[in-house]
Amino acid sequence: MNPVVAHTAAAVVIGNELLSGKIAESNLFELARTLRALGVRLERALVLPDEVDVIATEVRWLSRHSDVVFTSGGIGPTHDDVTIEAVARAFEVPVESDPVTLALILNTYGDRCNDGHRRMALIPRGAELATTPDVQWPTVVMKNVWLLPGVPEIFRMKLSVARAWIRGPQQFVSRAVFTNMDEADLKPLLEQVVRSHHGVEVGSYPKWFDPHYKTKVTFDARESEHVDQALERFLTLLPSGEPQRVE
Amino acid sequence: MNPVVAHTAAAVVIGNELLSGKIAESNLFELARTLRALGVRLERALVLPDEVDVIATEVRWLSRHSDVVFTSGGIGPTHDDVTIEAVARAFEVPVESDPVTLALILNTYGDRCNDGHRRMALIPRGAELATTPDVQWPTVVMKNVWLLPGVPEIFRMKLSVARAWIRGPQQFVSRAVFTNMDEADLKPLLEQVVRSHHGVEVGSYPKWFDPHYKTKVTFDARESEHVDQALERFLTLLPSGEPQRVE
Repeated sequence: MNPVVAHTAAAVVIGNELLSGKIAESNLFELARTLRALGVRLERALVLPDEVDVIATEVRWLSRHSDVVFTSGGIGPTHDDVTIEAVARAFEVPVESDPVTLALILNTYGDRCNDGHRRMALIPRGAELATTPDVQWPTVVMKNVWLLPGVPEIFRMKLSVARAWIRGPQQFVSRAVFTNMDEADLKPLLEQVVRSHHGVEVGSYPKWFDPHYKTKVTFDARESEHVDQALERFLTLLPSGEPQRVE
Repeated sequence: MNPVVAHTAAAVVIGNELLSGKIAESNLFELARTLRALGVRLERALVLPDEVDVIATEVRWLSRHSDVVFTSGGIGPTHDDVTIEAVARAFEVPVESDPVTLALILNTYGDRCNDGHRRMALIPRGAELATTPDVQWPTVVMKNVWLLPGVPEIFRMKLSVARAWIRGPQQFVSRAVFTNMDEADLKPLLEQVVRSHHGVEVGSYPKWFDPHYKTKVTFDARESEHVDQALERFLTLLPSGEPQRVE
């Protein structure tokens, strides 16, 4: 593995159980926060069923349009674990057993080792294996696609491996202003800021049931001086009594 | 509005704040559970940024491939609320002010009513408005696309409107077996069931950090006798001491 600088990322979360409402998805938020902290822009995320062709089609498209892609789930020994096969199909390569991973599996399971365990050594041909000193169990990386498991505790552990190898070109800077104004009243003020600070992403988030504020306004960019300028401009436009808080 | 029978659904969750990890997405789980209870199969879900072209492209595709589509978020008065415009673009129609909604807004805000408030009456031309006796504030429905707001409390309220108008062809039946077996050991048993019960969706979910069981196996179909047959077959294959629990 070589360290990777990624401007953009995409995510594919895989599992029928998420689409049927049996389990609430929880890995996406961890991934989004991790990428943000690294300075990588997560451009989109998909939740897909355990279907090889559906996953393969989307992974192929995403791997061409984002610098790095993460999959979550579908890694395991059973019939509904199809991510390895789907990613192999996305890149039109066969699936094969990786000798390093197989040795680890044989060493771990010994005499108990069965076909199911051995299946966990399968990788798309040409994939690399990422490790860190802390996490020796390898993470499969096919081209720019990182295959992470769906079990939340293991997903978080594997995210630390991705964090060791991937970084963005520059971190994001984010500031927030909390006001007691309605979004409708803030609208003309926000538009003035958006018009004159193109490089800054301005977000407006109403909170309907919070006693402390009504609308949170955020300013994000990679350049801190741009963020500060947009924030300062916005503050000068607010009526007296505002803002409630600045973070 | 006429009642709708939908076999399949798709979801588009919109918001930069979800992709930047500022907020954890929570509407998708509610939507998935609601659709499941109605007997509608949620086929995929997308999380997209506040970008008109990106949303329009995906909504256009999804509206052709699923019976019903739900969007969450991007409904509001500010510059980053682009869902109405994006859905209009998906169907190549203009955005226009709806007189019924505008009258409601004028009645609600009175003298305080400004451009921001009036903007909330905008709909894609040709959209219908769904209401229920309990939720009179209209929900915009463009063809088969339901536009729901992102604020979780309001999203849930609007879901009840969708629930009043949409149902699946038949409800799903789901059973679950909890075992203390590893997935790798369950694999050959599951494959026997999958091979002989094609109409039943069999899922296998390891729980790494639970003292009560190791793997949950689920059986889902619209026909309860098919589910029961697959479940019974699976139970006969389990070794003694299993299962831990059947639900």
